[in-house]
Amino acid sequence: MTDIKLNHLAIVVDDIDAALRFWRESLGLTQAGAVKSIPAEAVDIAFLELGDAHIELIQPTTAEGGVAKYLAKRGPGLHHLCLEVPDLDATLNELRARGCELINETPRQGDGRRYAFIHPKSASGVLLELYESI
Amino acid sequence: MTDIKLNHLAIVVDDIDAALRFWRESLGLTQAGAVKSIPAEAVDIAFLELGDAHIELIQPTTAEGGVAKYLAKRGPGLHHLCLEVPDLDATLNELRARGCELINETPRQGDGRRYAFIHPKSASGVLLELYESI
Repeated sequence: MTDIKLNHLAIVVDDIDAALRFWRESLGLTQAGAVKSIPAEAVDIAFLELGDAHIELIQPTTAEGGVAKYLAKRGPGLHHLCLEVPDLDATLNELRARGCELINETPRQGDGRRYAFIHPKSASGVLLELYESI
Repeated sequence: MTDIKLNHLAIVVDDIDAALRFWRESLGLTQAGAVKSIPAEAVDIAFLELGDAHIELIQPTTAEGGVAKYLAKRGPGLHHLCLEVPDLDATLNELRARGCELINETPRQGDGRRYAFIHPKSASGVLLELYESI
């Protein structure tokens, strides 16, 4: 066992209300909080509880931006995986030393979290977000 | 809170050894068991521990089969999500009543598990596998 745990699994959708009807009403997951607009990223997001982790639904609100382009190109579906690691700097240093491609060379900060994205090229095609455990 | 929990998250890869080098050696996840060949499905699989759930790595071993075609079309990456539900028949009945498209109309059985797949059309583009909790 390691101290690495799932924080969230993100799904890009074209209609967050329809998505909530499926995941919450039809399947029975519990929604955590209300749908939240993030104008700076041009997305609406919602979270569903999954044990002590979450499923994050992301709907682009404009045709621009990375998520909108992803949706236009690949359609709705699984978008990224976010794992928590105990020491983000140590993990990034280890990944860098092993030749992995990091999207964020140094941790970024948001909502009280230190995080960094790893490029899908180095992570089996998965857009991998790493959070530092708090 | 509901009784729905993550069982595994599957990633399709073109080289399971390279994928294990990333997820196990570089990132530090613990591998659960050895790489296993499933000739009937023409795949090799490996599991990594993620709390009490797993990441499943799937590598097609021939150019035929659903996973190989998925890999050829979309490249490596997140492939399906498997959640555990307490009563699979009740969940499938509820989904059917709400007009969801089921890949398996009745539960299948394998490795001591009852399971069914839900079509991505009805699940935000996600290939969703449901296990019955044991």
